[in-house]
Amino acid sequence: MAEPAPQKSACLIIIGNELLSGRTQDQNLTYIGTRLGDLGVALREVRIIADVEDDIVATVNACRAAFDYVFTTGGIGPTHDDITSPSVAKAFGVALRLDAEARARLQQAYGDAELNQARLRMAHIPAGATLIDNPVSSAPGFQIGNVFVMAGVPTIMQAMLESLRDRIVGGPPLRTRTVSVYLPEGEIAGPLAELQEHYADIEIGSYPFFRARRLGSSIVMRGTDVARLDGAKAELIGLMRDLGGEPIEQANG
Amino acid sequence: MAEPAPQKSACLIIIGNELLSGRTQDQNLTYIGTRLGDLGVALREVRIIADVEDDIVATVNACRAAFDYVFTTGGIGPTHDDITSPSVAKAFGVALRLDAEARARLQQAYGDAELNQARLRMAHIPAGATLIDNPVSSAPGFQIGNVFVMAGVPTIMQAMLESLRDRIVGGPPLRTRTVSVYLPEGEIAGPLAELQEHYADIEIGSYPFFRARRLGSSIVMRGTDVARLDGAKAELIGLMRDLGGEPIEQANG
Repeated sequence: MAEPAPQKSACLIIIGNELLSGRTQDQNLTYIGTRLGDLGVALREVRIIADVEDDIVATVNACRAAFDYVFTTGGIGPTHDDITSPSVAKAFGVALRLDAEARARLQQAYGDAELNQARLRMAHIPAGATLIDNPVSSAPGFQIGNVFVMAGVPTIMQAMLESLRDRIVGGPPLRTRTVSVYLPEGEIAGPLAELQEHYADIEIGSYPFFRARRLGSSIVMRGTDVARLDGAKAELIGLMRDLGGEPIEQANG
Repeated sequence: MAEPAPQKSACLIIIGNELLSGRTQDQNLTYIGTRLGDLGVALREVRIIADVEDDIVATVNACRAAFDYVFTTGGIGPTHDDITSPSVAKAFGVALRLDAEARARLQQAYGDAELNQARLRMAHIPAGATLIDNPVSSAPGFQIGNVFVMAGVPTIMQAMLESLRDRIVGGPPLRTRTVSVYLPEGEIAGPLAELQEHYADIEIGSYPFFRARRLGSSIVMRGTDVARLDGAKAELIGLMRDLGGEPIEQANG
């Protein structure tokens, strides 16, 4: 068995009280997880934290030491509860300063009359950071070290992440094979555990579902070696049929 | 100003590779955040981690030391990738053992013939834990110390959380006042920061929206003192009108 090439790891820090209170549902995680997978970067952990300076500083410092890449969303707008930028500066022990280029971009977008104090907050960037373009609403994100600070508004975050593609060096992309069957997890679990043992380089996950009044299982296999994935998938379908189940859905990704 | 009563704090650990890969969107966080708020418990942090023993052990131990309550979802089913129970046992340094009561519940649900080795995994509980009822599909969750281990399937998780109400002692419930207006955040930010300074016991959040081709802001105020909330809300509406904006939506929660 070929040793799989090493994946790069990432952590996503989602910053915002509204997600913790249950008021708002995050809309960025599934997009970021999928895009990073395409780039050969495995999202290994997500932390959702409040707009509290101590929490942001501690979390950024813990995560940037533990993962290859750290992405943050939220808290870079113009209001008093937008404190991600000063908190990240504090985490890195650098000053937050008015960035001339960021200021110029905001000036172009708002004009002198509307570029008030609140909006100028969005041009304050930690010393040593490089800007991340915001083609949607001009106020930039920034990269400092292995930490990428992005907006929380999904359209803006997506544009920012797209512009970062060249700065993110991943491993080979993760590919998936999914097979669903009307067999409950409890009946398929034994053979599935054996399959996992034979394919240690492939991550095999099992997810129950209930549809048309029937219990079923979706089996998702993830790995970087397409030939190994196809081999595992063929064996999986064989063991499903041995158990009396016919695959109802298949997907390659 | 009355000192607000202390809130209890909670952390939610969501366990599952499928959430990190972007395949699946979590459906439990908003429910749990809202219910805990009703019980006077503030959800302070969420961590989403993979089905990896070392990650689960480290995360459970970090969180149970830092928060009053820790809730986990996912990874207590019958398949090989369901490793939450042994990992939590390891985090607490106790044995995982076959629980007679849990076994009896599974036996009643499945009968002897279908209670195979895989399903019996779901009756293995850390020593010293107490069961959490599962009226949906019988396999129980469990509580050990301040850690509550629940299923990931939303209907099951919700039933489990409901049965825990008496075990969760919170502070006064968090109440909210929300006002939305067609004014961009950048125009309202200055007066809003002053309002926050006058109401240090209330958490004031600002969330931009774009609707009917117009930029707007939703202001959410959270606190435990209803009179203070109503006072802050009245001042907020006044300052919106001073800026030429008429509130378009209001909600009390």
